[in-house]
Amino acid sequence: MRELVHIEARQLLGSVALGRIAFTIDALPTIRPANHIVDQGDVIVRGHRGVDVVLQAAAGKVVAYSADVIDPHTYVGWSVTLTGMAQMVDSPAELARYPSIVRPWGAHEQAYVIRIHPQVITGFELLERPEELPTGAL
Amino acid sequence: MRELVHIEARQLLGSVALGRIAFTIDALPTIRPANHIVDQGDVIVRGHRGVDVVLQAAAGKVVAYSADVIDPHTYVGWSVTLTGMAQMVDSPAELARYPSIVRPWGAHEQAYVIRIHPQVITGFELLERPEELPTGAL
Repeated sequence: MRELVHIEARQLLGSVALGRIAFTIDALPTIRPANHIVDQGDVIVRGHRGVDVVLQAAAGKVVAYSADVIDPHTYVGWSVTLTGMAQMVDSPAELARYPSIVRPWGAHEQAYVIRIHPQVITGFELLERPEELPTGAL
Repeated sequence: MRELVHIEARQLLGSVALGRIAFTIDALPTIRPANHIVDQGDVIVRGHRGVDVVLQAAAGKVVAYSADVIDPHTYVGWSVTLTGMAQMVDSPAELARYPSIVRPWGAHEQAYVIRIHPQVITGFELLERPEELPTGAL
């Protein structure tokens, strides 16, 4: 395992479009898959179909966002996690900055994104191949 | 999108070995990739190389655990998330139940697992192909 420096972590985060956001609802942690882009160091998160109602609860909170590419067989890959304040972006002027990511996926969908300003960003690269692990079922 | 019933969610969770655990450290949320197996409805989590020190902080807390298989291009797939109390399992007798998952990956590694007893388990299946989204970088 090798720890990533800040710039590497940010670049890797920007190299994929799928991640997971963790935040609390009624003080209980939850995780949701989400789509993201990286814009001037901030992470712009677009909720996945149908989970957007839940994702709205992340706005105004400190959240964690994580993306990884880990081979399910060799466990070689990388993982990046950041923590920061999430803010709702729903004004048309601001949304116009992100035409690709806010393109609605459904006819009745309201467009919005969550902007996360990272306070801490960490990551690691998994280099070696450990002994193989079993699949999930016992 | 289709919501999964409990039994489907549990089966899908057990069909993969890689997930992400979310918990708080000093009241701030964080996410870590992890390996898991499902044992009698509980999720047995084995930390990934090098992040085990962080993962220990999850013990004794309510955590979220999530696994998903989502195609990065079509966004077809599924996601399962559960919330529950995480407990440290480090007694040799209990660890003997999980010989495959606690097999040490490094010479200096202490074997332990985190057992999560799900209070809530939810999931959804992403069936349709939405319009293609861009990759992560702006």
